Amino acid sequence: MILTVDVGNTRIKAAVFEGSTVLENFIFEKNQLEEKIKKILEKFQNCSDLVVASVGNIEKQSFLTFEKQLSVHFFTHEDVFPFHNKYATPKTLGIDRMILAAGATLQFPKQNRLVIDAGTCITYDFIDENDNYLGGAISPGLRLRYESLHHYTARLPLLTFETPDSYIGNSTAQAIHSGVVNGFVYEIDGFIDEYRANFSNFIIILTGGDADFLAKRLKNTIFANSNFLLESLNQTFQYKIEND
Amino acid sequence: MILTVDVGNTRIKAAVFEGSTVLENFIFEKNQLEEKIKKILEKFQNCSDLVVASVGNIEKQSFLTFEKQLSVHFFTHEDVFPFHNKYATPKTLGIDRMILAAGATLQFPKQNRLVIDAGTCITYDFIDENDNYLGGAISPGLRLRYESLHHYTARLPLLTFETPDSYIGNSTAQAIHSGVVNGFVYEIDGFIDEYRANFSNFIIILTGGDADFLAKRLKNTIFANSNFLLESLNQTFQYKIEND
Repeated sequence: MILTVDVGNTRIKAAVFEGSTVLENFIFEKNQLEEKIKKILEKFQNCSDLVVASVGNIEKQSFLTFEKQLSVHFFTHEDVFPFHNKYATPKTLGIDRMILAAGATLQFPKQNRLVIDAGTCITYDFIDENDNYLGGAISPGLRLRYESLHHYTARLPLLTFETPDSYIGNSTAQAIHSGVVNGFVYEIDGFIDEYRANFSNFIIILTGGDADFLAKRLKNTIFANSNFLLESLNQTFQYKIEND
Repeated sequence: MILTVDVGNTRIKAAVFEGSTVLENFIFEKNQLEEKIKKILEKFQNCSDLVVASVGNIEKQSFLTFEKQLSVHFFTHEDVFPFHNKYATPKTLGIDRMILAAGATLQFPKQNRLVIDAGTCITYDFIDENDNYLGGAISPGLRLRYESLHHYTARLPLLTFETPDSYIGNSTAQAIHSGVVNGFVYEIDGFIDEYRANFSNFIIILTGGDADFLAKRLKNTIFANSNFLLESLNQTFQYKIEND
């Protein structure tokens, strides 16, 4: 039994796996880290490994307290991954993006793979059919777009996500919802179109907090799985054990 | 001779007009307001009117000191505009968007008009062929996208605008440039496609600080004029004098 933990920019997501099956998912705030993991391990006492990917500001030290109970693995760039990393700056490639690329490589072998993770940021990661990781893109996620409109202007309100009535927003709130949400969808469809125009034999994997919302709205067909990062963390850890 | 002043969220832009001809353009910071306008009026002593549109946090009071020299008009929602405002919340419609809609109505009569202003925010404003202003959208501009990626994440750097090498960024910097700049272009093309699918007899006017960069990159044909807001301010003021 493995406890996987994804420390994102905003929150922490975790899942307990038995083989490749998810037993339970958890989402919590960063300041609840120790308390929540303690509770999870009380409930799932057969956990043998705690496996972490962190892009937030929580380092390995925060997890060492659990080493009395089980084996802790904190993924870094030094680990073995199932793709050839062609990134020009491999040390600044976020560990979340490496785990997503690893999961895509393992789960969808020998095809061109685009992973889109719509969370705090939208990350785009491309692994070609020869398992070369080529890079991708990073842009602001939905919440960042709402926040920046308020934070950097004198008069725009801070709104939370709402499906816009129309692409022509007929009030300030509707105009913001249209700009943020439709803009977000148009951007993702634009990127997918660009990849499709250049590659065939192609799968698109969509994940992250906004995956389910997006899946219904994109004009392109995609494989949506909001749990893909945690599943990839579990799979990449198995791969590591077998290949280390 | 008229001095037009556009107080945006980030900077102040100004232009002196003789009839419909621009004599000179100026860009400056908000804290330079009084000093810069004083200098402009020393150079162009025949200015009879100072005409202002402000969405930044500079109010009418800041301009009253110039009333000794010339007539000051600070545009508000109470002014007469050449379109029928169908916005559900007309009092929160930014005065910059009203001036853009007025300029589009006056300069391109009797057709469907979409004005895209790519500045601090991207604003989309639509006026149909019967001069009904229907609304539009607001989303973060280029700089806001770069800033939000840095501000709201633990590890992404703050970059300044650069044309991306490819849609597949092969370094953290290139991934950010691709996500921000390509995402921005895909969004705008997506909105234009949506309007085009629903309306014919159609003109698209592109303005704002990023208009020239965008004009070369959009797949859709557009009328690009980075000075459109100040020209519209001049025209809307003429319209006001004739129709008040």
